[in-house]
Amino acid sequence: MPRGHPGHFYLFLCTMNTDLFSFVRLQTFTEAVFLKMGCSPSHAKMATEALLAADLRGIDSHGVARLSGYVRLWEAGRINASPSIRIVHETPSTAVLDGDSGLGLVVAQEAMDIAIKKARDVGTGWVSVQNSNHFGIAGYYAMMALQHDMIGMAMTNASPLVAPTFSSDKMLGTNPIAVAAPAGEQPAFVADLATTTAANGKLEILQRKNLDTPSGWVQDKEGLASTDAHILKKGGALLPLGSDREHGSHKGYALGAIVDVFSALLSGANYAPWVPPFPVYVPMPSRQPGKGIGHFLGALRIDAFRPANEFKRSMDDWIGGFRGAASIEGQQKVIVPGDPEREAQQHRMKQGIPLESSVVKDLQQVADQFSLTL
Amino acid sequence: MPRGHPGHFYLFLCTMNTDLFSFVRLQTFTEAVFLKMGCSPSHAKMATEALLAADLRGIDSHGVARLSGYVRLWEAGRINASPSIRIVHETPSTAVLDGDSGLGLVVAQEAMDIAIKKARDVGTGWVSVQNSNHFGIAGYYAMMALQHDMIGMAMTNASPLVAPTFSSDKMLGTNPIAVAAPAGEQPAFVADLATTTAANGKLEILQRKNLDTPSGWVQDKEGLASTDAHILKKGGALLPLGSDREHGSHKGYALGAIVDVFSALLSGANYAPWVPPFPVYVPMPSRQPGKGIGHFLGALRIDAFRPANEFKRSMDDWIGGFRGAASIEGQQKVIVPGDPEREAQQHRMKQGIPLESSVVKDLQQVADQFSLTL
Repeated sequence: MPRGHPGHFYLFLCTMNTDLFSFVRLQTFTEAVFLKMGCSPSHAKMATEALLAADLRGIDSHGVARLSGYVRLWEAGRINASPSIRIVHETPSTAVLDGDSGLGLVVAQEAMDIAIKKARDVGTGWVSVQNSNHFGIAGYYAMMALQHDMIGMAMTNASPLVAPTFSSDKMLGTNPIAVAAPAGEQPAFVADLATTTAANGKLEILQRKNLDTPSGWVQDKEGLASTDAHILKKGGALLPLGSDREHGSHKGYALGAIVDVFSALLSGANYAPWVPPFPVYVPMPSRQPGKGIGHFLGALRIDAFRPANEFKRSMDDWIGGFRGAASIEGQQKVIVPGDPEREAQQHRMKQGIPLESSVVKDLQQVADQFSLTL
Repeated sequence: MPRGHPGHFYLFLCTMNTDLFSFVRLQTFTEAVFLKMGCSPSHAKMATEALLAADLRGIDSHGVARLSGYVRLWEAGRINASPSIRIVHETPSTAVLDGDSGLGLVVAQEAMDIAIKKARDVGTGWVSVQNSNHFGIAGYYAMMALQHDMIGMAMTNASPLVAPTFSSDKMLGTNPIAVAAPAGEQPAFVADLATTTAANGKLEILQRKNLDTPSGWVQDKEGLASTDAHILKKGGALLPLGSDREHGSHKGYALGAIVDVFSALLSGANYAPWVPPFPVYVPMPSRQPGKGIGHFLGALRIDAFRPANEFKRSMDDWIGGFRGAASIEGQQKVIVPGDPEREAQQHRMKQGIPLESSVVKDLQQVADQFSLTL
């Protein structure tokens, strides 16, 4: 593959050296690790389900590949395995939740449960969370609303990797937005997107292979265009969705900023470049204007707007329209948000979850540390 | 300027042939036109304020340049100048509003007023609108929340100009998202973005000058890359924010889809490629799965989360951080969302609003039609 022209990039992602693990095997192991950390049985179960949702849905960067990272944060005293999660303030449709430094995987589920309860009572529920940690994939929490005939929404801020348009400073995280809406006969609509051109996970894959990125993904520490997949370690930054000003990077930057406002400014969490990093070896920011990481979770009860069956019929019609949209010659069919992840989940539940050898090695170390069997 | 390399594109936008009109002159004229259409005095005033907010804030494509378009829709019976705007269904935090084919400029303000009232009562308010028309700039409605110490949110769907990733069919409008959040000593944060790489207004400017677009803005009717600014008339499409799959166009497409779900699927308005067009000469879509155009307006009372003065202090700190972020050599300073529009407003209130000669001619025709003086 020529450097700088990763034409068959996506194909290439599927051909790496991996071992297959059954979902149940990873589930048993992950739950045992969280129990060893001191999580309650219910929290260990919740955290495992949220974490493995990433592996099942094909978002390999956010699943068990991060399990050792959570363990390191717990060792450093930055994750509290038995948090007293509490509501700081609330109104009929809102709450601010203090995660007490708990696992984001647990805290965000508690927050979404509150949002759903409030939506049941007054139509919608919105919970802004302070003092939390990395929560895995946003889509998991948005999807919690689906079984209640609600639309779910989830956002989180994250440690700074992204430079706003016109700057060489990393000021925002990859700050994802997820929205899940139920359909009738069609599968649910599930959008889950980092507000950057490319997710950091894709960069990590290129790093391991020592390949360049496409143009428009990253810049160097001076803010100049780069295709070096290792550029973050050299002071470079990810670019907001849109890549450059001419292609709308100010919009990606604004979207990342909106996520920060809802997740951290509304809750009292850390924001902008002062969000604590996930890797325990990365130094903490120079100041702490808030507490921990922030999330924002929302639920909208559909029949607070119109009858749910009418909405779902319309969603089926909408989705059908997109499935029927004309393809471009030589390209794949139009995708409805959520399709690839659902297909990955169906496939991986049956066939197993492929883990790269470096991840397996990492998990083995965790197993050894806690005297567990992987 | 070499074709296909519009390097100084933004500079060029400011050097076109224009006449200056004072805000008061355009205000008096626009209000008179809405009165002639049969709007009530209060509706004429509201519609004028919303429409001219675009001209003041420098979004020239959405202001008086569209006034004749509203008149043509009214002549065609598609805009009802004296609508009975009514709540179809509501809960403490939600409502669906039927705009009765009224001016979107009026209907969206009524909807935002309801959202603000509900936010006062239960913390947040969310109004999905059916049976409306084009509402101008989304930012205007989001900003209505600011004076109440609330965060405002506004979205609208629009007639199909945008192809989803992998398709040659136009399936979505430019579907903008706006969020406004108050600060303390700093001016408010106001993000207002179409979910496309470039707004249609920028394309129209290039069309008038017969210049090409940068790459990644449009595709032709087969879905192939194009830089033809006239390509929409030839069956081509605007591209979602991200431009292509490798640069995240599936994210721009998902964001446009989310706007459609909130604005139309929740309210019962038309959606996807079936949203009625703004220009009266464009044929109506083959079917009407809902009523008119859809909007979604939201208000979040800040002290439903945390004390407003604390939030505003944090916003000041956040904004200060971005203003202080390192610039890239040779580029302008980092912009906080809302800066350029606020500066345009300050400048244009004093110096006047520049209108292109084609827009002046258009307004003169409207003046003649209604026996008014421009």
